[in-house]
Amino acid sequence: MKTMSATAQASPNIAFIKYWGNRHSALRLPVNGSISMNLANLHTRTTVTFGGVEQDSLHINGLPVSGKGLQRVSAILGLVRQRAGISLAAEVVSENNFPTGAGIASSASGFAALALAASQAAGLNLEQAALSRLARLGSGSASRSIPSGFVEWQMGSGDEDSVAVSIAPPEHWALADCVAVVAAAEKDTGSSEGHDLAPSSPLQAARVADAPRRLEICRRAILERDFTALAEIIEQDSDLMHAVMMTSRPALFYWQPATLSVMAAVRRSRREGQPLAYTIDAGANVHVICPQSHAAQAQQMLSQIPGVQAVLVSPVGGGALILP
Amino acid sequence: MKTMSATAQASPNIAFIKYWGNRHSALRLPVNGSISMNLANLHTRTTVTFGGVEQDSLHINGLPVSGKGLQRVSAILGLVRQRAGISLAAEVVSENNFPTGAGIASSASGFAALALAASQAAGLNLEQAALSRLARLGSGSASRSIPSGFVEWQMGSGDEDSVAVSIAPPEHWALADCVAVVAAAEKDTGSSEGHDLAPSSPLQAARVADAPRRLEICRRAILERDFTALAEIIEQDSDLMHAVMMTSRPALFYWQPATLSVMAAVRRSRREGQPLAYTIDAGANVHVICPQSHAAQAQQMLSQIPGVQAVLVSPVGGGALILP
Repeated sequence: MKTMSATAQASPNIAFIKYWGNRHSALRLPVNGSISMNLANLHTRTTVTFGGVEQDSLHINGLPVSGKGLQRVSAILGLVRQRAGISLAAEVVSENNFPTGAGIASSASGFAALALAASQAAGLNLEQAALSRLARLGSGSASRSIPSGFVEWQMGSGDEDSVAVSIAPPEHWALADCVAVVAAAEKDTGSSEGHDLAPSSPLQAARVADAPRRLEICRRAILERDFTALAEIIEQDSDLMHAVMMTSRPALFYWQPATLSVMAAVRRSRREGQPLAYTIDAGANVHVICPQSHAAQAQQMLSQIPGVQAVLVSPVGGGALILP
Repeated sequence: MKTMSATAQASPNIAFIKYWGNRHSALRLPVNGSISMNLANLHTRTTVTFGGVEQDSLHINGLPVSGKGLQRVSAILGLVRQRAGISLAAEVVSENNFPTGAGIASSASGFAALALAASQAAGLNLEQAALSRLARLGSGSASRSIPSGFVEWQMGSGDEDSVAVSIAPPEHWALADCVAVVAAAEKDTGSSEGHDLAPSSPLQAARVADAPRRLEICRRAILERDFTALAEIIEQDSDLMHAVMMTSRPALFYWQPATLSVMAAVRRSRREGQPLAYTIDAGANVHVICPQSHAAQAQQMLSQIPGVQAVLVSPVGGGALILP
């Protein structure tokens, strides 16, 4: 039987201006634009093979996935089949090079790699905007793992134009993300459910209304390589998202005691003149952003904080790509 | 030389719906109403003696206070002198029965006791509303330490009617405050300066706009002795205030790692059916509210959390009173 196969690789990204809350949940149309940088040292590699199987199947890191996880992948495969005019089931095999359970979400890199591998395997030659849109339908932040380097996901007017574009390539600014890995005491609420709770916070509307200001400051800080401005705005944006999370009903608390310790250490270091800034996603880990030249020093400082289990360091990464 | 003297006692209060931000800074007119309960086991005792001294003087816990601390007290003494038609300087001697440095603010109990002792010493016979207003001019939350039990400070239309009134006497509901004392790593920003930063947070307007809803829920929960409703609203209100603090510029972070540990333990206990709720003022301590019947158990649970240095337990207290 004829099979059609392709392998793609994509990196997770760390958001500087966060995505939290949808104006259309199923289409993952966000209530505000967001900005991120890709993480070079981390990646997901995904092979999609259409044909040769009866039903869509999914393996992540060698383990079979069924239920909701498979359904989310099948929905993307279905869009690709529809567009390519094929009806073959697909086998999807995905591997992350970062440790499972370290609190680094694989949905962004996973759906970006899936969108690219599936469309390539199906013989589609999608442009970057179409790929970003397809990845977005799987996981909002995956839209930002398609373009290279520093990326802005524009909220757009609808499904067609809510896509991510590159603001600057990786070599524009040699930043690094030092991920201070902090164990979560309880299983986190996943982002997908979390986004639906955002409107229940009395603070979400104010956070969203203020987003254009933060996007503008962050975009300019990246273009001008202004670390001081970047540090200030990404910390405020992260704190705003967690403020909304904590005041949602039910409340979402992602910070652990060690999370606070790292935040305080980063603020203290910056007051002492070190170029460090923190940002925290929907988890307990703290992403400490700094110039690459300071990464080794930052890694050492962070490793000594009680409750920090590991520090993963990554420079700015490129976009999703097809592997030979 | 003739002297006129009086001694008064007042308790600190713990706010269920917080005061954060002024619409008029010098007059301490708040941007929203607030609700609190007085703490019976803690108090400040203050003796004011007009006459026999050349200049106003202040001692707190045996130590002389000058500079800004004395100026704030002299301003209240000046209002009393003006109203009583006297011009004598005063000696003020104040003692707290709670440990200095435990992060329990003495400004509420201190200015409530001062307002009562000074007006009594000067021969004024002020009604409760006038006393509450006078205390408010020294420290906003002091207005709530004048009336008894569960107290609401109404934002009012101006200086005259921004005063606190009792919602229910102490015996209405046998609650306790178990104060988990957590050491602060750095000196906190005082409330007076903090209030001025509130408008710099993008979240303050939303917090204030939502305040009537929270006040209504809290007032009703107290009147109906509904612990579940009280727990939910006081935690959200506390988290809303800290959300504003953390997103102010400069940012104010009062939580320490142990603060988060206590918050998480309280939420976990409540999920397991224990009637506990937390609320946190402008400091690292966690005030754990529970029925008095659960206070011993709560004290024991809290004492075992790493980073908790002591747990002070207090039932609901009465208002400010003159001591013989």
